[in-house]
Amino acid sequence: MARLALSIEYDGRAFEGWQSQTHGKTVQDKLQSAIALIAGHAVSLSCAGRTDSGVHATTQVAHFDTTVTRPLSAWVRGVNAHLPNTISVRCAWEVAEDFHARYSALARRYRYVLLNRPVRPAILAGKVGWFYLPLDLSVMQSAATAILGEQDFSAFRAAECQAKSPVRTVREARVFQQGDVICFDFEANGFLHHMIRNLVGALVHIGKGEAEAAYMNELLEMRDRRRAPPTFMPDGLYFCGVEYPDNWSLPGQGRIIVPPTLIV
Amino acid sequence: MARLALSIEYDGRAFEGWQSQTHGKTVQDKLQSAIALIAGHAVSLSCAGRTDSGVHATTQVAHFDTTVTRPLSAWVRGVNAHLPNTISVRCAWEVAEDFHARYSALARRYRYVLLNRPVRPAILAGKVGWFYLPLDLSVMQSAATAILGEQDFSAFRAAECQAKSPVRTVREARVFQQGDVICFDFEANGFLHHMIRNLVGALVHIGKGEAEAAYMNELLEMRDRRRAPPTFMPDGLYFCGVEYPDNWSLPGQGRIIVPPTLIV
Repeated sequence: MARLALSIEYDGRAFEGWQSQTHGKTVQDKLQSAIALIAGHAVSLSCAGRTDSGVHATTQVAHFDTTVTRPLSAWVRGVNAHLPNTISVRCAWEVAEDFHARYSALARRYRYVLLNRPVRPAILAGKVGWFYLPLDLSVMQSAATAILGEQDFSAFRAAECQAKSPVRTVREARVFQQGDVICFDFEANGFLHHMIRNLVGALVHIGKGEAEAAYMNELLEMRDRRRAPPTFMPDGLYFCGVEYPDNWSLPGQGRIIVPPTLIV
Repeated sequence: MARLALSIEYDGRAFEGWQSQTHGKTVQDKLQSAIALIAGHAVSLSCAGRTDSGVHATTQVAHFDTTVTRPLSAWVRGVNAHLPNTISVRCAWEVAEDFHARYSALARRYRYVLLNRPVRPAILAGKVGWFYLPLDLSVMQSAATAILGEQDFSAFRAAECQAKSPVRTVREARVFQQGDVICFDFEANGFLHHMIRNLVGALVHIGKGEAEAAYMNELLEMRDRRRAPPTFMPDGLYFCGVEYPDNWSLPGQGRIIVPPTLIV
């Protein structure tokens, strides 16, 4: 028995989220079917971050176990030949039996890509979020620093979130602009359900002048999702990568991160 | 009677090219229908560059005549409300009666966006060209300079091209790389049918080591399409803008150019 890990890119618009469902229209279902054709037996994938419907990934990481031996290229090009053109396996590598794509992860990274211009996107429809009024970059940059460190993120947690604790440790919260695109980069040990879309909703609320930067601290202290600004659309959200401990000898010293090929 | 010009963005994958056809699945058909709903009468659009099926535009320019007076915002947001989400009018302005989107243009600009990595694109499927073998950037940069100036482009002209002359004047031919994306920027007084896809086909042929940079000069001298490398896929081609003489007081001194919001 061998355990294999894959790095996977997908267009979230084409699927109803990552997690397998009976209708089969999910990223996990499409991948499991394609891998089974190469393995010759059914496989079960575990991923680093279960993305919602409409959320993209440049670097999802998932593992599965197989009884067969194939060259690594079979798990990349062979699997890709059986996938829709909106999913692509980018890389495969063999891992130790105790590696787990989800439980071994030390940190996850997401980018929200927001088009900030008067008219809606056409070329990147579904690939970027959109806000039509001018946003104040520096006030959003200032507000974003409030979420750094270990904190209770109840204010940014969906009602249906199944996590045991609302506490997460955010390592990075960076806002930057290139042309009419504003990017929000987040890295944390983990994220609650809808946490990034809720954070972006609050930052846009501040950026358009509805509140001061300090409002971010108030929201964190209130710990009440119902009093926070609405969840932002999924369109611009990209799961960009995962960090694992060094001891698994993964590519890139365990930081498997590819930012979106979008922007300016 | 007033003449209006529009700057338009579209995802070429969603349509069978610019030019109106009886089936109505073209960019021109969708725009004319949407504008007619705002104008209250049928309109006829003339554009700066008739793009083929699958070719995108960040900055198509087109004009039409109307008997009604509407605020400019009606020609932007009003028209957008009646368009599919893969077309977006970005800007409208009133122009003199002798302005013509096609015949007044001094120069056109295109960018070809090529993803150069082993596995096919998923997030940007249809939005970027793809080549899986490594390409030599510097040899392609050197080869691209061969096409500068006024020259006979018969070697890069589709058999069905209807232009009277194969001679065009290329002002810019620039190749640059950002991460795993290679961009090819071209500016000329005009382009022949499939000229850019044929130029990119030849540059990729050189970049993968099949020929020296000087092969570009040989192709130009041979003037024989049948002896040149194949036409590259349309997926990564963007019509990025048009230049008009200053006397029309168009926005940006007549250079109406928006590069693709894609890249790294």
